[in-house]
Amino acid sequence: MELDGLNFIGKTRSGARQETFRAIDPATGAEMSPDYFEATIAEIDAAVEKADRAFQEYRNKSGIEKAILLETIAEEITALGDELIDRCCRETGLPEARISGERGRTVSQLNLFAQLLREGSWVDTRIDTAIPERAPVPKPDLRSLQKPLGAVGIFGASNFPLAFSVAGGDTVSALAAGCTVVVKAHPAHPGTCEMIAAAITKALAKTNMPDGVFSMVQGLSVEVGMALVKHPLIKAIGFTGSFKGGKALFDAAVRRAVPIPVYAEMGSTNPVFILPGALFENGENIAQGLAGSVTLGVGQFCTNPGLVLIQESEKSASFLQKFANRISQINAGVMLTSAIDRAYRSSLAKLAELEEIETLAGGAHENIANGAAACVLKTNAAYFLSNKVLEEEIFGPSTLVVSADGKADLLKIARNLGGHLTATIFGTEKDLKDHEELLSILEQKVGRLIVNGFPTGVEVCDSMVHGGMFPATTDSRTTSVGTAAITRFTRPVCYQNFPDFLLPDELKNDNPLGIWRKIDGAFKNDRKAS
Amino acid sequence: MELDGLNFIGKTRSGARQETFRAIDPATGAEMSPDYFEATIAEIDAAVEKADRAFQEYRNKSGIEKAILLETIAEEITALGDELIDRCCRETGLPEARISGERGRTVSQLNLFAQLLREGSWVDTRIDTAIPERAPVPKPDLRSLQKPLGAVGIFGASNFPLAFSVAGGDTVSALAAGCTVVVKAHPAHPGTCEMIAAAITKALAKTNMPDGVFSMVQGLSVEVGMALVKHPLIKAIGFTGSFKGGKALFDAAVRRAVPIPVYAEMGSTNPVFILPGALFENGENIAQGLAGSVTLGVGQFCTNPGLVLIQESEKSASFLQKFANRISQINAGVMLTSAIDRAYRSSLAKLAELEEIETLAGGAHENIANGAAACVLKTNAAYFLSNKVLEEEIFGPSTLVVSADGKADLLKIARNLGGHLTATIFGTEKDLKDHEELLSILEQKVGRLIVNGFPTGVEVCDSMVHGGMFPATTDSRTTSVGTAAITRFTRPVCYQNFPDFLLPDELKNDNPLGIWRKIDGAFKNDRKAS
Repeated sequence: MELDGLNFIGKTRSGARQETFRAIDPATGAEMSPDYFEATIAEIDAAVEKADRAFQEYRNKSGIEKAILLETIAEEITALGDELIDRCCRETGLPEARISGERGRTVSQLNLFAQLLREGSWVDTRIDTAIPERAPVPKPDLRSLQKPLGAVGIFGASNFPLAFSVAGGDTVSALAAGCTVVVKAHPAHPGTCEMIAAAITKALAKTNMPDGVFSMVQGLSVEVGMALVKHPLIKAIGFTGSFKGGKALFDAAVRRAVPIPVYAEMGSTNPVFILPGALFENGENIAQGLAGSVTLGVGQFCTNPGLVLIQESEKSASFLQKFANRISQINAGVMLTSAIDRAYRSSLAKLAELEEIETLAGGAHENIANGAAACVLKTNAAYFLSNKVLEEEIFGPSTLVVSADGKADLLKIARNLGGHLTATIFGTEKDLKDHEELLSILEQKVGRLIVNGFPTGVEVCDSMVHGGMFPATTDSRTTSVGTAAITRFTRPVCYQNFPDFLLPDELKNDNPLGIWRKIDGAFKNDRKAS
Repeated sequence: MELDGLNFIGKTRSGARQETFRAIDPATGAEMSPDYFEATIAEIDAAVEKADRAFQEYRNKSGIEKAILLETIAEEITALGDELIDRCCRETGLPEARISGERGRTVSQLNLFAQLLREGSWVDTRIDTAIPERAPVPKPDLRSLQKPLGAVGIFGASNFPLAFSVAGGDTVSALAAGCTVVVKAHPAHPGTCEMIAAAITKALAKTNMPDGVFSMVQGLSVEVGMALVKHPLIKAIGFTGSFKGGKALFDAAVRRAVPIPVYAEMGSTNPVFILPGALFENGENIAQGLAGSVTLGVGQFCTNPGLVLIQESEKSASFLQKFANRISQINAGVMLTSAIDRAYRSSLAKLAELEEIETLAGGAHENIANGAAACVLKTNAAYFLSNKVLEEEIFGPSTLVVSADGKADLLKIARNLGGHLTATIFGTEKDLKDHEELLSILEQKVGRLIVNGFPTGVEVCDSMVHGGMFPATTDSRTTSVGTAAITRFTRPVCYQNFPDFLLPDELKNDNPLGIWRKIDGAFKNDRKAS
């Protein structure tokens, strides 16, 4: 398809401002056409106003209608074919196999939400029937379900240009909830964003959806994003990115005249605890798997294991040697942008200057543009505990090993951890039984606990929790991956004493949708003969 | 029981500061003994630290164990007998029948949550089983459920001294969730608070719960509440009260180094729309019921209908006359505190000064202390739309009638409304069909919609939504009444690749609790033979 760099104000294409920017191939530093038009405040206002108007119609679409929309978006993305893959690889420096895989995941994600909508029970229907004869006061008929919030703003992430960008998890869960969406495209892959936005726009037209269900604005500047967050008609924000970016959006949102929820996933260091029995019995496999997990996607995963905690022993020295050898053999990879590459290098340089930080391994450093070498650093428990900065995420293929003197040290480190997306424990059955307290502590810090596995690889399913305590996210009560993400964009509404004809289908007496409902305290899915 | 005015730091009683205050009988202005000890920062710290420590044990209590605790609290409250009723009536000016009724509601609420815990499915169990042979990557086993947040701070409300105070909806839902609780007692009924706190403390001892599951601090000053909100170990806040109070807590909570959720229910004006057909066919009954709803509990209900919207017609004049007559016959009632009485009078005086506000009725004004007379004011749609202050809650037995010229005016008013807890529509079947757009607009503003009923009277059940858009609450995604309130105090945790013995009972393969679970996309409650 021909890219033109214009913003999507609903189905209207627009490029009003003179300021433009271009995509850059991080592997070569070369600029790519076309020019992208930085959105103006007027364009953002127009997009949000369209989204608010479209919401009045879209909010009443049935689950089936919304499911067909999501399925059609999936088809249109697939129909973009190799052109999408090519552009995306060039804009991100990520290899073709990864981007093809990510497209598969994005399409599956759309279809999974479609399936959730077709089944329909996600709205959490609760029905309490009337008891007119109850004394001293009659009990009225009360029924509730989840309803969409309104027009929402979604910020695309740089590190998943498909699965967490324009048609990624945030957009899909918002559209599934019945919200209309204004996306702020990530400037690191504007062409990919434009292609996906075009696919969504096509799908909306094919399914006769109102103009304004989806808009997308481009921009390099902070102002574009801030204008979205501060717009009075925006009802919630979804974001995946840096702590600095997410926290700024949160701070702006809670200071509005009418505060709104911000679901910012701001990354984490994902501590991995390797307990003595597992290290003894399975150290070689763990070393190999861990090296793969640290360097997957050039370490640019939110669930990248940036912190490894072990107990000092004879065995631990040989484990670390194996791990370091493994890392040394891994070739440098192209990072998403030169800014990310610079940040990675400067963060590592700062750490290397610290007294009790030892460099165990630096990966092969080929002479390529924005090529980041993998890296393993090491320190001791006391030094780690006294330097809060060591817990902060370094976005890239590095990890810090903290060597503890024993179990008490490990527990102390665990207790002092801030919030993370995940925590991982490698342990034999005996290890796990001996470290129940460690599990209990970690459970209070993260959204997902992994035993004898690696944190990278986030399954899109009903039970996934891609969330966790602050500063990993701004709202630990939610997930940004998996079907439970839909309730970030809804709130409950209760209907008292409504005649049947006025109730949403989900709440009608004869259960025309055949969904699961809690009726007078009992779960039922009977569809009554009408 | 003998009251001593001390704070409850877990099971330890403490009164460190010299500053004290006393309960005041609003009907007489008389002070009541004992002296209540304003909590010190050291006492608040001690209570929160105990709550945090106790959480490590309490969070792992089974549903049955927590249910028995709640049932025991209900028994201990009942065992307080007439002494509780007497003290509570004297501290609040509310009549004996109301307080007895409210005790019944408080006890039922505890038992309803106990029932929820015994049934057990509320934790939203999701299980996705492994597919080791999946290509290109195996699917791991993933399981999630809701887990408690930690130690939480609860602020008692003045207007429901039992049902929304120390053992009220917020405390019960937090304890049911598995959180430990530090209550800030409302200074308008400190003796009632002390008696309930003693009952809870007794129930905790009887059920062998760890010290610190419950604490209660007294205080007149803003500092006591702020110290609780700002304490780093506090993980969420529940509050019912004024906009000013709730918003101040919210602002402090989101500015913490680690922000926490605040569930503040800050009241609303609860608009009531009386459509022409209903007014014509049923005006007399509506006038009578509305007068009762406006003056229930001397108008001191969060769901008090403070705004009535009608279409001008011949019939509307006679309706208003009947409504005004009805209100005129209602005797003044004692308000909860002299401060509330003063605020009521000054708010009404300010409105009476406005140009286009007409006083239709002032209720009988007996010469009693803090006695508030009922009141009906009237204005027109244009004036209402141009004065945002007219939408603000006046806490007390008054209501403002807005007379509109026709349907377009009504829709304009509805569109311009802020968030409220409830909206009510009186309408014949024809009215309702003619005003679908009105319903659709109101649904986006409130937590509960009522047809042909009154907003006062909030049923405690699964489907209740006592919430609504800001400024009615700080979090429209939740309810503070009914069993769904429990999820305010939880967040999801996901367990990946866990051996069965390490999983919580709710997630174990053989479903030992027999709860409903979503397994590979399907709802099931089979308990497997183990």
